[in-house]
Amino acid sequence: MIGRLVIVGVGLIGGSFALALRAAGAVGEIVGVGRRPESLAAAVELGAIDRAGALDRATLADADMVLLAAPVGDIARHAVDVAAMVGPATIVTDAGSTKSNVVAAISSVPDAVRRMFVPGHPIAGAEKSGVRAASAGLFRDHVVVLTPTADTDSMARDRVTAAWEACGARVVVMTAEDHDRTFAAVSHLPHLLSFALVEEFARRPEAARLFEFAAGGFRDFTRIAASDPDMWRDIAIANRAALLFELDRYLERVAGLKAMVEAADAAGLRNAFDVARNARVAWGQRPPRR
Amino acid sequence: MIGRLVIVGVGLIGGSFALALRAAGAVGEIVGVGRRPESLAAAVELGAIDRAGALDRATLADADMVLLAAPVGDIARHAVDVAAMVGPATIVTDAGSTKSNVVAAISSVPDAVRRMFVPGHPIAGAEKSGVRAASAGLFRDHVVVLTPTADTDSMARDRVTAAWEACGARVVVMTAEDHDRTFAAVSHLPHLLSFALVEEFARRPEAARLFEFAAGGFRDFTRIAASDPDMWRDIAIANRAALLFELDRYLERVAGLKAMVEAADAAGLRNAFDVARNARVAWGQRPPRR
Repeated sequence: MIGRLVIVGVGLIGGSFALALRAAGAVGEIVGVGRRPESLAAAVELGAIDRAGALDRATLADADMVLLAAPVGDIARHAVDVAAMVGPATIVTDAGSTKSNVVAAISSVPDAVRRMFVPGHPIAGAEKSGVRAASAGLFRDHVVVLTPTADTDSMARDRVTAAWEACGARVVVMTAEDHDRTFAAVSHLPHLLSFALVEEFARRPEAARLFEFAAGGFRDFTRIAASDPDMWRDIAIANRAALLFELDRYLERVAGLKAMVEAADAAGLRNAFDVARNARVAWGQRPPRR
Repeated sequence: MIGRLVIVGVGLIGGSFALALRAAGAVGEIVGVGRRPESLAAAVELGAIDRAGALDRATLADADMVLLAAPVGDIARHAVDVAAMVGPATIVTDAGSTKSNVVAAISSVPDAVRRMFVPGHPIAGAEKSGVRAASAGLFRDHVVVLTPTADTDSMARDRVTAAWEACGARVVVMTAEDHDRTFAAVSHLPHLLSFALVEEFARRPEAARLFEFAAGGFRDFTRIAASDPDMWRDIAIANRAALLFELDRYLERVAGLKAMVEAADAAGLRNAFDVARNARVAWGQRPPRR
């Protein structure tokens, strides 16, 4: 049970966390903080928060838990700002898609506050945004990755775990570095590659013909290129070390395939495509990871 | 009305062409040619063909139309073989995913035969295979690209157009070069890139963790990596000049994005992603191209 919860950034993620904890009876008062008064008013109206607060001591000092659910590009800064205003018993967590930047940001805050900070990343809801899209069921059966450091307080980690579990999520713990490398590979890189293909076509003189004949393969490959440009700019920059590492690995792989195409190496291409096809078919037969 | 139609390669495409023409009452006798007797027996049983024939003069000499619907890697060779056996009134067309290689192959056959050859590519049905997946409606509202050359007989082109229209398809005419460049961009390149990502992950020591956390973005991006390796090896090789051209353009685009990530160029990334997002959203709002 969380007595007072403060949510900084009451959009899809922050709003759904609020609604889910409320539905589970796991929270007392919920205070929302955000830049746009109309979003906070909507959050009150939807029952996600009880009232609007501000990024100040009055709101934060005696909060039991603070969730930072602002855009990725703002979270590291918010973490440092919030650390200066919370009380000694306040647990702070976040919902950012990248974790090493958050861990780095809080390395400069006082030990007592840093120990109460549990970095996190709920894997859900990239395709919609805003508190009006929020729902109590958003995290049900989804994974939430927590990346506590060696000196994260274990009670704080357990409380954040319990909160996400109350939302119906499955919590997985890993290091921030493992998180960032894993998601650079399986999420951030495909987004960059998909954006790149559509941008390349869009900037061509023959763009109209390309889009005219683009069909199912293009549709699937580029579905994620319709994602929010601000969010993905923030993620690409916040996770750039891991993203560049993954991008280089991928470009090496593509260079290998390119050499096979140049050489008309039928056996090499057959083998490469077969390894990919078998892995993709096997993965597709697993229960969907939400 | 086609008196006698010979289909070389009675799989999904050849079988569906047969069933669609039969349903439209646009064909007399249909003879199937293929390597596997059991496929031809199934095609007879399904009503797609009347009987099995062979790649010989007895089957081909007095055919009114021949459709080459064998795998891409076999079509150019079949085109030359068939050209030596057809009669002066036989129209030959094909259903290969690449066209310049077919045009090049027939450049060596006698003028009278070459004029009766109408290269084609129905845009349909990449995800299934085999005559048992064939249906009379496969091409309905789909595009069929024909790539006649300057000396293709206009009557032959019109007869092939009419046959595909009888199947419910919309026929578009372009040069083989335009076809191959367009489809290298919108189809062959995305397949190569998608295969490359899954192959890269599958060959990593940490493959299990990557597949464990791969979610919706990965699913969409890699759906086409479950495609038939033989078919895509054949296409990559048959269309390698255009594919390499497109691959180089794409790699330049990715190199530009990589430089922006390295420089943490927020404005540059925002602009690139925004151009892509807007183009993809606009494209997605068009009626689906089948």
